Amino acid sequence: MEKKTLLTDCPDAMGLISKITNICYKHQLNIIHNKEFVDHRHRQFFMRTELEGVFNDETFLFDLDRALPEGSHRRLVSSARKKVVIMVTKEAHCLGDILVKAYDGTLDIDIAAVVGNYDKLAGLVEKFDIPFHHVCHEGLSREEHEAKLLDCVNQYSPDYVVLAKYMRILTPGFVAQFPHRIINIHHSFLPAFIGAKPYLQAYERGVKIIGATAHFVTNDLDEGPIITQNVIPVDHNYSAEDMARSGRDVEKSVLSKALSLVVEDKVFVYGNRTVVL
Amino acid sequence: MEKKTLLTDCPDAMGLISKITNICYKHQLNIIHNKEFVDHRHRQFFMRTELEGVFNDETFLFDLDRALPEGSHRRLVSSARKKVVIMVTKEAHCLGDILVKAYDGTLDIDIAAVVGNYDKLAGLVEKFDIPFHHVCHEGLSREEHEAKLLDCVNQYSPDYVVLAKYMRILTPGFVAQFPHRIINIHHSFLPAFIGAKPYLQAYERGVKIIGATAHFVTNDLDEGPIITQNVIPVDHNYSAEDMARSGRDVEKSVLSKALSLVVEDKVFVYGNRTVVL
Amino acid sequence: MEKKTLLTDCPDAMGLISKITNICYKHQLNIIHNKEFVDHRHRQFFMRTELEGVFNDETFLFDLDRALPEGSHRRLVSSARKKVVIMVTKEAHCLGDILVKAYDGTLDIDIAAVVGNYDKLAGLVEKFDIPFHHVCHEGLSREEHEAKLLDCVNQYSPDYVVLAKYMRILTPGFVAQFPHRIINIHHSFLPAFIGAKPYLQAYERGVKIIGATAHFVTNDLDEGPIITQNVIPVDHNYSAEDMARSGRDVEKSVLSKALSLVVEDKVFVYGNRTVVL
Amino acid sequence: MEKKTLLTDCPDAMGLISKITNICYKHQLNIIHNKEFVDHRHRQFFMRTELEGVFNDETFLFDLDRALPEGSHRRLVSSARKKVVIMVTKEAHCLGDILVKAYDGTLDIDIAAVVGNYDKLAGLVEKFDIPFHHVCHEGLSREEHEAKLLDCVNQYSPDYVVLAKYMRILTPGFVAQFPHRIINIHHSFLPAFIGAKPYLQAYERGVKIIGATAHFVTNDLDEGPIITQNVIPVDHNYSAEDMARSGRDVEKSVLSKALSLVVEDKVFVYGNRTVVL
Repeated sequence: MEKKTLLTDCPDAMGLISKITNICYKHQLNIIHNKEFVDHRHRQFFMRTELEGVFNDETFLFDLDRALPEGSHRRLVSSARKKVVIMVTKEAHCLGDILVKAYDGTLDIDIAAVVGNYDKLAGLVEKFDIPFHHVCHEGLSREEHEAKLLDCVNQYSPDYVVLAKYMRILTPGFVAQFPHRIINIHHSFLPAFIGAKPYLQAYERGVKIIGATAHFVTNDLDEGPIITQNVIPVDHNYSAEDMARSGRDVEKSVLSKALSLVVEDKVFVYGNRTVVL
Repeated sequence: MEKKTLLTDCPDAMGLISKITNICYKHQLNIIHNKEFVDHRHRQFFMRTELEGVFNDETFLFDLDRALPEGSHRRLVSSARKKVVIMVTKEAHCLGDILVKAYDGTLDIDIAAVVGNYDKLAGLVEKFDIPFHHVCHEGLSREEHEAKLLDCVNQYSPDYVVLAKYMRILTPGFVAQFPHRIINIHHSFLPAFIGAKPYLQAYERGVKIIGATAHFVTNDLDEGPIITQNVIPVDHNYSAEDMARSGRDVEKSVLSKALSLVVEDKVFVYGNRTVVL
Repeated sequence: MEKKTLLTDCPDAMGLISKITNICYKHQLNIIHNKEFVDHRHRQFFMRTELEGVFNDETFLFDLDRALPEGSHRRLVSSARKKVVIMVTKEAHCLGDILVKAYDGTLDIDIAAVVGNYDKLAGLVEKFDIPFHHVCHEGLSREEHEAKLLDCVNQYSPDYVVLAKYMRILTPGFVAQFPHRIINIHHSFLPAFIGAKPYLQAYERGVKIIGATAHFVTNDLDEGPIITQNVIPVDHNYSAEDMARSGRDVEKSVLSKALSLVVEDKVFVYGNRTVVL
Repeated sequence: MEKKTLLTDCPDAMGLISKITNICYKHQLNIIHNKEFVDHRHRQFFMRTELEGVFNDETFLFDLDRALPEGSHRRLVSSARKKVVIMVTKEAHCLGDILVKAYDGTLDIDIAAVVGNYDKLAGLVEKFDIPFHHVCHEGLSREEHEAKLLDCVNQYSPDYVVLAKYMRILTPGFVAQFPHRIINIHHSFLPAFIGAKPYLQAYERGVKIIGATAHFVTNDLDEGPIITQNVIPVDHNYSAEDMARSGRDVEKSVLSKALSLVVEDKVFVYGNRTVVL
């Protein structure tokens, strides 16, 4: 008996749930969890089906492909632990949270390595017996630096790259290597305060709530599909620095929530939006 | 073309989704929304299916009944507007919110009447051209009072009875007339602070968050199945009166949220819990 | 024995609290509540002092003026109920909430009149025995329309003007008549989604949280000082219409929270920010 | 120039703010932050004053003592980093969060040692070069075990003891050693679900929100003064285990928030309540 997850994403049509679940039934696969969603505006159907049984992937997918309409995507994902490379700059809170959660099993991931453009966090990473690579950007063009980063990351063939407060912008060339596989934490409630200094902007605008946003990285800065967001109240007592300090707990919980959803194969991307099933 | 909602609640078994959606498909009923949930602990299956098409209720339900396992419950509910009787004492906020929401269409209900054990809210109700009945409890035994209440409520044959800050305890006899059809708002985050003066208890306990709970009424005071809850932060600056005042906005939004879920047939009750699909 | 509130706003200096409270003490005024705040970035001091006693306003303010540094502002505000004119377009939820809250005393205001550029809400307003004025904008230039609005509003000499989903932009000329005295509810978590269709923008951006912002109106659209904000979670199940519907409860509670803070003289404006004491 | 914090807690009287700030002024101590609170119900005055200047503690406190009414408490606290001993059982999340926050400076504390009744977390603690003591309870009476614990803790003379998911009940004898100096995290929204298995209780009660509570430990189990609380929404999809897993992020952020408030001398205890200034 094995467990796998079937992810179906196709144009909506009558009888889709019935067709898909019939095929599971025919293959003697038990449905542990099933969630589906239809975007009526775009007539798109999404379904996530956790299955248990003895899988013959080839015949199962063959049957599915005959049943699904044209333009369908379906993936049958094993429940193996995902491999992750984390990229950082200087701030420890998001990294530390992921390290502790992976250590105690809350986050079921394999952290293959951590890569920093500064070496400040090497000590923390090494405490957890995980390789830390310092890939310094100084004196390098953006392209040269990213080439080095890419070499470093690719040696681990990660399923996902996590930007845990990595404070440099990645070029389209880098991003294209990992389509919808780079997860970033932005320290604001997007789309408010795009850019590098959101807490200062939030302070100056006098907002009463601040937040954080985890999203997939695309070529538009801070514009990729949003996975999770959360907020906390602030008031006039908060300086920009206070907001930044208070924001850390939100940033780290939002990032690790997003990471757990992604590695559990719960997140569909379509257009610039996510469906989380 | 009509719209109806099928609510299925039965022991879990393999292929249920497939069987039910097959029957919808066979009857040429289009699935607009479908949500299901399996309680693995209790091996119980729940599904809510919004359907569109030309219904032959009899043959559709006949087919369903043959397909579903023993111990199944299924209801095919029309999308007609539900009829509601509201019971109140003296506080206007929950009542006022429901009146305004029904008036502007946010809450798709038909308020048949409002019944109060005081007449304080008669003026507010009459502004909205809705009958108000003053059923005074003074000088009556609990049984006598409830007999009068029941007469008053029953003349409207309501689908649901809403206790919008009705501050008297109902007897099992009354409750039995409306199984899982009486919705109450309790002014605390249940199960904290059961009873009559939760804000005073909350103040004295020094809590930093207060809340409200909407639940179905059963024979155990404040122990019925919870539909929705919400909370707000408080601090040492709040007296018990301040908590009560601040709590009103939570109470009213929790109650009308619960009411909208119930009248949209989204709430299953089983045991002492609800499944909201 | 009377109650008044002293609002002090001045450049920060050593001993300010001591000086001000000494003067209260000397005048035999008891301090019921006192809150102060120093903005260290801008070296500005704010204090709100609720006083009880027998007031001689002239000598009290004379003493204060001698003690406070140059560039100080101080106001001694009576606790009389504030007079408010509400402006609306077609949506009932914010208006209805304020009407009910004023009716039951939750909001201690005197609603002098409601002015709408449509007459859709006349019926609701008249239920509460409050004058409704239909000042139609059709066939009029913006200036002509606002001149009529101004005539209509000014006959009531309101302390504050509340835009309860008034969906037209006001010109600088109108705004200048009521500096920091017009309160607006914007149906988004500002500064995200400035403009007319924030829920549609939020839907298209795929956000996971939506919100509402109450702010003073200045000449920059949706850019005035923020008084309160609040948010609710949403997900992929929400269409733009669902977001709008769910957003209504947030909008109304944010607006009436802001209004209650303002009429209780708890809000200082400086620059584009508020200090709420 | 030094920084110290004056904490005053006394029966309310006219002119207290004036008297205290006058004395600060006289001693040429600049007030950086000041917050006060009067509990009108109990006629008690609380003030927290952050001061900067050259301190002569003796004369300053002498002046204060002459000015304050009978029954006053006042403390002048240096801004030195507080020393903390953490007690744990088997769960890593709260401990891990505090370790990382102390490591990166978010939490300005000196973790003197960690004591566990199991040795499961020794590895994690030692990564941070902090002593871990395994004080096993097996085969010992409660009194014998606590005597050993006390020996172990006392060698570090901690300012505060933090129970970071320490899952055994402490006796009055132990608690009496650290009055209002032991901080516990309880994994529920107190006073709901007192006791050992709150998530199971929450699941069985069918609640829609779960929470965590940080409080000072007194002799009544889970009844001590509450410092902070927070909550997250749950629904029927959550098993008791899911609630426990989701609750971890709340527990850790509530505990470290409470700890930071306490070590910054912002928390007054009186009766069974806290005032957080």
